[in-house]
Amino acid sequence: MFNFDFYNPTRIVFGKDRLDNIDKYVPTDATVLITFGGGSAKKSGLIDKVKTILGNRKVYEFGGIEANPHYETLVKAVEIVRSKNIDFMLAVGGGSVIDGTKFISLASHYNGDSRDLLKYGFTRIPFNIVGKVVPFGTVLTLPATGSEMNNGAVISYEHGKFAVMCELAFPKFSILDPTITFTLPKIQVANGVIDAFVHTMEQYMTFPVDAKVQDRIAEGILQTLIEIGKTTISEPKNYDARANLVWSATMALNGIIGTGVPQDWTTHMIGHELTALFGIDHGQSLAIVLPALLEVRLEKKRAKLLQYAERVWHINKGSEDEKVDLAIHKTREFFESLGVKTHLSMYGVNADKIPVVIEQLKVHGMTALSETQDLTLDISQKILEQAL
Amino acid sequence: MFNFDFYNPTRIVFGKDRLDNIDKYVPTDATVLITFGGGSAKKSGLIDKVKTILGNRKVYEFGGIEANPHYETLVKAVEIVRSKNIDFMLAVGGGSVIDGTKFISLASHYNGDSRDLLKYGFTRIPFNIVGKVVPFGTVLTLPATGSEMNNGAVISYEHGKFAVMCELAFPKFSILDPTITFTLPKIQVANGVIDAFVHTMEQYMTFPVDAKVQDRIAEGILQTLIEIGKTTISEPKNYDARANLVWSATMALNGIIGTGVPQDWTTHMIGHELTALFGIDHGQSLAIVLPALLEVRLEKKRAKLLQYAERVWHINKGSEDEKVDLAIHKTREFFESLGVKTHLSMYGVNADKIPVVIEQLKVHGMTALSETQDLTLDISQKILEQAL
Repeated sequence: MFNFDFYNPTRIVFGKDRLDNIDKYVPTDATVLITFGGGSAKKSGLIDKVKTILGNRKVYEFGGIEANPHYETLVKAVEIVRSKNIDFMLAVGGGSVIDGTKFISLASHYNGDSRDLLKYGFTRIPFNIVGKVVPFGTVLTLPATGSEMNNGAVISYEHGKFAVMCELAFPKFSILDPTITFTLPKIQVANGVIDAFVHTMEQYMTFPVDAKVQDRIAEGILQTLIEIGKTTISEPKNYDARANLVWSATMALNGIIGTGVPQDWTTHMIGHELTALFGIDHGQSLAIVLPALLEVRLEKKRAKLLQYAERVWHINKGSEDEKVDLAIHKTREFFESLGVKTHLSMYGVNADKIPVVIEQLKVHGMTALSETQDLTLDISQKILEQAL
Repeated sequence: MFNFDFYNPTRIVFGKDRLDNIDKYVPTDATVLITFGGGSAKKSGLIDKVKTILGNRKVYEFGGIEANPHYETLVKAVEIVRSKNIDFMLAVGGGSVIDGTKFISLASHYNGDSRDLLKYGFTRIPFNIVGKVVPFGTVLTLPATGSEMNNGAVISYEHGKFAVMCELAFPKFSILDPTITFTLPKIQVANGVIDAFVHTMEQYMTFPVDAKVQDRIAEGILQTLIEIGKTTISEPKNYDARANLVWSATMALNGIIGTGVPQDWTTHMIGHELTALFGIDHGQSLAIVLPALLEVRLEKKRAKLLQYAERVWHINKGSEDEKVDLAIHKTREFFESLGVKTHLSMYGVNADKIPVVIEQLKVHGMTALSETQDLTLDISQKILEQAL
């Protein structure tokens, strides 16, 4: 097991009818900015419910945070925070709204060009750079990214997606009420299942370091997603299935399974380019890249692939090669069983576009990916060819 | 899955050579009280190392916190905190030292008789009762209780053990360096394995509520303890085995596996009386009670016992009854394989002492134990008879 640090002060309020807790955890004298996305939170009446609970607090709204939240949108909210003296934010939405709110939180009191905050990536933004932040809570409407219980965000700027991480960016609290997610479109739920699955795989499918508990937890999340994935899409009001999805997605990226293990975020890095260039949904981009990555990196990941085959898919017969091949096949089959296509060409992206993706990976410095930093652009090209 | 709240702001610093982090997380202008136990932390040179790292900070020491830390000992430390204006504490020890330090932290600024703090039990001490606390970090020397990453303590007073829980009592940080634990006596390591195992069982072996991830994590911790238990006792310097024990013990009681599930703390409640009355080690008392409890409550816990048999012990043959019986047998066998006896009579406690235990359970209000609060004194008596 590698040495590690773990710190996660986000308070989770989980279950049915928990929205009232907003009143408990937002300071009574706060001036609040509610942030949200495309309007469904408004139309469904959720924003109104939240405002009722906020009672006499002074409340402003900032809607329109898009999927893959864009810098240009978020700086408009920063202006509101500054001009209205906002001292607490409430993000009502999925990963994009929460990610965007983290950026607003970090940028609002930053002295300088807030595009600076996009340049730190996985090295994390030092405290002294940011100084003061605007505290915020979240009301999660889409189980997927885990943003509700971590300190990371992915922000779009021009044609790139940038990781923004800072220990000051943890939500103060997150309300996770599975019933709020009952009305989500099927495809968004499917994308959420895949996002959580791939987050887990990226912290698990590397090389073994004898981190037994972390492996077991990762395998537990993967098995849970496999068990409930189809059900929670076909039976959106099945509380238990949805509750297990919500908690799995949060646990997949709150730091617990990442403690002391190598990590391979290649799938997200290549996936981000597919989203930025071709508008492929984030979850779909991951469903395209992961199986191809596993096929190309089979030898490198053999030991963990075998463990994955046996413990997650319960494949106990056949040679090692057969087990590993079957596990990858079953992974792809699982994504497709959720109604998500796993080949680039099915999204209208053909071989002639691969050089464009490679060029963007190069522009963004993604030339030494993976847990061993030896995944070159040549290998990314092979993965994209495999994904066609 | 039940509704739940989860909050755990303790920072974990895990791995080899992490002691230097004390300097990072203890305020540079703090007046520090180092708390420790019977002297092994002193003799081994650990306290001196810690003092060197604390550098120019003003440092006081309070040693002699005993196993099952006693109120009368801890109030002496409270006097030091008050008279020397201590504003940070560093607990160097195992669960008893850390538990004791939590109590000192809560009691130091309490206006009133600090025995009041013993009366809240699992209902937790309200913030407004405690007011200010003395912040503290820990250097863990014994993997067992999980106290390094939770807000609970067990304090002895007269002939009882009392749960003390408060959200203000989380350690600010905990240094978990497995190499520090290499020199522990074998029996203490065995007790630690059992303590972590039983903590996990108490949050798992109840009735099913379809909390899939929590179940998988609990099963993962149990499997890990089974895998490394004997090894980490016979090969104390096997880093990986010990690291897995340390992280398992922490994960077993940091709140994660307890989210949204019923819990049955009967084993600890009866075990506490055995320790208080007969001086049986905490871990040993659990090894005596748990198998007997499972045998007596077999019907009540049948569904989870079957899941436990199949997933933890991989028992796939035989009837349901055979599987369940074998799983309980294997649990007892596992404890004994660690060198810990699992029958009361082996500790010199015979049938004539059972009424004394029952009387103490009655005195302490332990008359409606378990996840369903229907475990009466009569049933406790059956468990004790079964444990003879």
